[in-house]
Amino acid sequence: MIILGIDPGLSLTGWGIIEAVCRDKMLALKYGCIKTYPSAPLIERLQIVHNNLQNIINTYKPDVVAIEEIFFLKAAKSVAAVGQSRGAIILTVAMNKIPLFEYNPRSVKVALTGYGSADKHQMQHMVKTFLKLKEIPKPDDAADALAMAICHINTIRW
Amino acid sequence: MIILGIDPGLSLTGWGIIEAVCRDKMLALKYGCIKTYPSAPLIERLQIVHNNLQNIINTYKPDVVAIEEIFFLKAAKSVAAVGQSRGAIILTVAMNKIPLFEYNPRSVKVALTGYGSADKHQMQHMVKTFLKLKEIPKPDDAADALAMAICHINTIRW
Repeated sequence: MIILGIDPGLSLTGWGIIEAVCRDKMLALKYGCIKTYPSAPLIERLQIVHNNLQNIINTYKPDVVAIEEIFFLKAAKSVAAVGQSRGAIILTVAMNKIPLFEYNPRSVKVALTGYGSADKHQMQHMVKTFLKLKEIPKPDDAADALAMAICHINTIRW
Repeated sequence: MIILGIDPGLSLTGWGIIEAVCRDKMLALKYGCIKTYPSAPLIERLQIVHNNLQNIINTYKPDVVAIEEIFFLKAAKSVAAVGQSRGAIILTVAMNKIPLFEYNPRSVKVALTGYGSADKHQMQHMVKTFLKLKEIPKPDDAADALAMAICHINTIRW
């Protein structure tokens, strides 16, 4: 199974592709970030997010997408920015008819560390360990996206 | 010129199509609401918003789209819902290569009534007057969408 994990944002959207044959056999195929610049009009930024995501889907043909839920404790302006990017991302997934799974930040932490209040460093360390990587994936948004995909692998029945 | 005005939301997205030959000659061709139900998964709701909007675009072939900016004083959960729908709407507009204009609630009020604190009733009355309608358009979200289109007509240079 190919899982695409997404950490949605407007300036930075992290993404990570993992291939898994079971809970104990997972391999990071590729990960990265989609960047858009605040100086560009919103319509162009959402088109960039869509075009890049469509390229990733065309290349890796994921069976499922795992995406982070919106974190409501942030400022309304930040929620609006993430929300609009997330709407464009989810519509892109819908148009490709790929099943979508949403996970909240706490359940991702529990799935990776067994601990709902794990910090960023602990999470990144577990991403590195699960994927048997030599280094912690960079940038942080890509590591967060890989964590989403691992959360899905560790949550579903195999 | 054909203008599509949009009042974005997740449960209710108002839309209105106006044909204008100049600032003083405008005609409402059609208006209505796209509804989605909270019981449906988010991915289905965004797909419904997209499909309906695409049908409206195919039917009326608007030259421009005027959409309301997000009102940040609402609760974060409400901003997230509107934001995600708005992201799907703007991506749909982008994929159709239609120019998009964004107006904040205050500038829409000024464009229609000359008064930035106009209430809902005053706004709806002005929509009826500008479009020479016999009744105030219903539901409210459709009237708000027509107000967006009128705002664009009253704002641009002719």
